[in-house]
Amino acid sequence: FCDMLGVAVFAITGGLMAARLGLDILGFLVLGVVTAIGGGTMRDVILDIPVFWVRDPNYLLVGAVSGAVVYFLAPVFQSLNKTLLWLDAAGIALFAVAGAGWAISVDAPMAVVIFMGGLTAVGGGLLRDILGNTVPFIFQREIYALAALAGAAIYAGLQRYGVDNAVAMTIGGSVTFVLRALTICFDLKLPVYKQS
Amino acid sequence: FCDMLGVAVFAITGGLMAARLGLDILGFLVLGVVTAIGGGTMRDVILDIPVFWVRDPNYLLVGAVSGAVVYFLAPVFQSLNKTLLWLDAAGIALFAVAGAGWAISVDAPMAVVIFMGGLTAVGGGLLRDILGNTVPFIFQREIYALAALAGAAIYAGLQRYGVDNAVAMTIGGSVTFVLRALTICFDLKLPVYKQS
Amino acid sequence: FCDMLGVAVFAITGGLMAARLGLDILGFLVLGVVTAIGGGTMRDVILDIPVFWVRDPNYLLVGAVSGAVVYFLAPVFQSLNKTLLWLDAAGIALFAVAGAGWAISVDAPMAVVIFMGGLTAVGGGLLRDILGNTVPFIFQREIYALAALAGAAIYAGLQRYGVDNAVAMTIGGSVTFVLRALTICFDLKLPVYKQS
Repeated sequence: FCDMLGVAVFAITGGLMAARLGLDILGFLVLGVVTAIGGGTMRDVILDIPVFWVRDPNYLLVGAVSGAVVYFLAPVFQSLNKTLLWLDAAGIALFAVAGAGWAISVDAPMAVVIFMGGLTAVGGGLLRDILGNTVPFIFQREIYALAALAGAAIYAGLQRYGVDNAVAMTIGGSVTFVLRALTICFDLKLPVYKQS
Repeated sequence: FCDMLGVAVFAITGGLMAARLGLDILGFLVLGVVTAIGGGTMRDVILDIPVFWVRDPNYLLVGAVSGAVVYFLAPVFQSLNKTLLWLDAAGIALFAVAGAGWAISVDAPMAVVIFMGGLTAVGGGLLRDILGNTVPFIFQREIYALAALAGAAIYAGLQRYGVDNAVAMTIGGSVTFVLRALTICFDLKLPVYKQS
Repeated sequence: FCDMLGVAVFAITGGLMAARLGLDILGFLVLGVVTAIGGGTMRDVILDIPVFWVRDPNYLLVGAVSGAVVYFLAPVFQSLNKTLLWLDAAGIALFAVAGAGWAISVDAPMAVVIFMGGLTAVGGGLLRDILGNTVPFIFQREIYALAALAGAAIYAGLQRYGVDNAVAMTIGGSVTFVLRALTICFDLKLPVYKQS
């Protein structure tokens, strides 16, 4: 259920980009689906495991419906902006540890496990921004990706040192969520490169 | 043969974008190939079946040559604009049912079958537009993608209810073609989202 | 070792784009990694062989570190512009024959082998430019991609006619390097399409 909530929230952010671009309902649906399943699709293809939404098409349906719903209710979602930000933080926490977990399940090396956590969490948003023809969001507020990588790293580390998988996942996911929450509350950003 | 015609037509639309961007001949070739084989490549990678043009490189060659030919004959193809539009409609009809057919062949669930029909039909054009750094065409005239999804859905539905595969394919493909043709003739568009 | 040098050089070009975009350090890291491993990742996924950096995460680490280092030393790398151009030429030579070699190892047809050489050499830069939201560089100075394709073709041809693999690789790689070097020295470009 948590999984599906993450998919729905990500799809809604896709739908909100479609609203900004002034697309028709199919544009909402496409951007919703791509944002929701993009990161996990890249993860599964690279790890060479069956793509998650080919096995369970509910992910596809939830993503499509959530994106399309924004077409009718965009003002509602826009007024829920704060709520969505928090749900999105929960979404990346979930996707980061889930992505890392799949990499662990095929015995990938530690660096790959961490990278897969990051890719699963930000990959969908990356594709959304590429399709929307804007500079990807992760280049604007990087602590988004950093939070995902940090949570995945802590999960992977704990799991490697024998901590129970569910406990390690919970701790890792919490780290991502808290880091992201701090970023939202205090508007933290990493310093950008300045031409000297 | 039909397949190759579809590949050639898609590659020509890639070449025409290269003409708009003022590229050199290799740019025509690259955009031709990407447009022609992009959708099918994503489909095969996601379904984890051998990529079609790795098995049969003629697709690669037809795509490359068709794209490159536009470098020399772009004015001819531009004057054939109407003809190309109809061939392109035939192309997406073909690609939509072919994409759905491959998904059926690996026993993918219905929603995935329909999605794969859409992806195969519009995926190449999507990559072409991303490489050309424009907002993807499917966000401008969505009935393109809708026609592909509808044809794939009808093919998949008929096939599921025991209709002979070739008959179901023909009906599904015809639906896509007719929908797309109506869109061209009457300049139909879905209503876009308007900020209220 | 050569391989890792190629990865590092490609990652540095990713970092230099991050400097142009004024990103933070994670942006440097992401663009570095994507540029360094993007081409090979697409190759491995399409050929359906294990992705090279999942097997050996050192590629991932070298790419990440090389990209991130540019954050601190961008002026140094910018002043080394000429040196980097030559290292980059060596990098594409290496990647072109390596990409073709992997395709040969799975008995791919000749056209696919050549294409895979080109894809491995330019794929990472292509993804870097898409993420940076610019028209891909290969559309500006195409002899880059042509050099990669030519080297891959000559390697594949020689190998097919029984020349020793290492010898064929060296000759193919040298052709790519020399073609690219000539392009750099004499600022050669293919003629672009002009609307008549």
